[in-house]
Amino acid sequence: MHQDRFTPPAGAFTRSVPVRFSHCDPAGIVYFPHYFDMFNGLIEDWYTQELGYDYAQLIMGSQYGFPFVHIECDFMIPSRIGEVIDLTLLVERIGRSSLGIAIVCHRDGIERLRARMVTAMMSLTTRKPVALPQGLREAIEAYRRRTTQ
Amino acid sequence: MHQDRFTPPAGAFTRSVPVRFSHCDPAGIVYFPHYFDMFNGLIEDWYTQELGYDYAQLIMGSQYGFPFVHIECDFMIPSRIGEVIDLTLLVERIGRSSLGIAIVCHRDGIERLRARMVTAMMSLTTRKPVALPQGLREAIEAYRRRTTQ
Amino acid sequence: MHQDRFTPPAGAFTRSVPVRFSHCDPAGIVYFPHYFDMFNGLIEDWYTQELGYDYAQLIMGSQYGFPFVHIECDFMIPSRIGEVIDLTLLVERIGRSSLGIAIVCHRDGIERLRARMVTAMMSLTTRKPVALPQGLREAIEAYRRRTTQ
Amino acid sequence: MHQDRFTPPAGAFTRSVPVRFSHCDPAGIVYFPHYFDMFNGLIEDWYTQELGYDYAQLIMGSQYGFPFVHIECDFMIPSRIGEVIDLTLLVERIGRSSLGIAIVCHRDGIERLRARMVTAMMSLTTRKPVALPQGLREAIEAYRRRTTQ
Repeated sequence: MHQDRFTPPAGAFTRSVPVRFSHCDPAGIVYFPHYFDMFNGLIEDWYTQELGYDYAQLIMGSQYGFPFVHIECDFMIPSRIGEVIDLTLLVERIGRSSLGIAIVCHRDGIERLRARMVTAMMSLTTRKPVALPQGLREAIEAYRRRTTQ
Repeated sequence: MHQDRFTPPAGAFTRSVPVRFSHCDPAGIVYFPHYFDMFNGLIEDWYTQELGYDYAQLIMGSQYGFPFVHIECDFMIPSRIGEVIDLTLLVERIGRSSLGIAIVCHRDGIERLRARMVTAMMSLTTRKPVALPQGLREAIEAYRRRTTQ
Repeated sequence: MHQDRFTPPAGAFTRSVPVRFSHCDPAGIVYFPHYFDMFNGLIEDWYTQELGYDYAQLIMGSQYGFPFVHIECDFMIPSRIGEVIDLTLLVERIGRSSLGIAIVCHRDGIERLRARMVTAMMSLTTRKPVALPQGLREAIEAYRRRTTQ
Repeated sequence: MHQDRFTPPAGAFTRSVPVRFSHCDPAGIVYFPHYFDMFNGLIEDWYTQELGYDYAQLIMGSQYGFPFVHIECDFMIPSRIGEVIDLTLLVERIGRSSLGIAIVCHRDGIERLRARMVTAMMSLTTRKPVALPQGLREAIEAYRRRTTQ
């Protein structure tokens, strides 16, 4: 079987996730919707820990939402209970209110799955898209520059 | 806002899903991984109720698995607690061991989201792809013919 | 193995739930937190379909919440993918703002698990308990009377 | 409101869990079944990191299962997105094949919820209870001794 190698760019935001009993299905591998839940957790941590924007505060305080507009995902290698997988977030495109990111799930230098996701920033009160605030935009652009391979 | 109309082809497999409290996030809309869980449930019901192949028996008895290889999804309109949404399954492509399906989520004739998913049939014992059994293939092809618009 | 027989009282609110692939763990049985999710869905349907109080409206419109204060659950018989299980809701106690209910999961007249849960009605705006509105209280009391064995 | 103070015994197994967007419901607090999922994760980590028995290996290798027989839980204080909560595991009772544990969720020295859970060790092949292996029993007894207040 063909395997894609993956090495995260220096400085890329990567978090490890243990594959738990609760993630796995009767076939013993991760039930795929759980990956999307892991991705959302990674994005939360990226905002808070990497960009310096507290995600909970953006949602509950500033009343912003970040719904997904488009998702695509290729699943190459399944993951099993007890494994620890790494998730790396990369920025692909920064629009006025939208953000294109890639999340690569990998282990031991081999890519296991890769998602490309477009999220839009919206106001939870007006339910309309809003432009990314300038400070947040700059933080994202700086992250993209320093992690572009 | 542009809205896409959608009318399921006659005979297409459609199931209604109530949007529950547990599906919704602090923004009051369906948390997106739940859609993928709904899709998996729809596919299960489609095998069992439409194709006449008991899904549980395929997994636990025959030791087949149907992992996803590729998923893409466009989210157009969010859904809220208390709404009932309709999910329609369409077949796009039938390969040797893979199956390309589309799932359209709609309400009142308006498309809310659309997923295209490729699943592969594999053996849980050998962990290798297996060709779709002839009877199952014919059932899927017949479904595709009678639901192609 | 000892088995408890269970026959729902006449008129008791019962809904069937198919055990799905996604409910089951690597041991092939329902991963237990999913039961609690099923219970919450049953309670939602009971409010809406049996008591005539639209649950979504109670939450999003009237800004009531129904957090659990206490839960206990005995698990007697595991459930497996492909089985259809029945959930029956019984009222045990009606307080000023609290409600004690039992949910029995059964199949073929045999009890599989039984939960006893106390929920409190609260205001989502003040975050304080509120007395059950008179009409809702009467609907619950009437349900209890007609389903007490 | 009365608040129960809680300080974990010295040496007790405690892990922090960030409350994520995905844990929270439209009322903005943790949807309760997620707590049970967190508890299961804590138990996994306790076996692997504290007792020195790799949980994944116990399940997939040795074909043991640890289904819950009884659960009870008191919910005192809700948790909100962005908070970090601490979960502490205590052993209450060690039977032949059963294990009684308590999990206390706390923050800033205040108890938020407390669960008492009884799990049974079983063979996934015979589907019958098995006695706790001697080494595992001793590791659990030693943990109980050193964490009993």
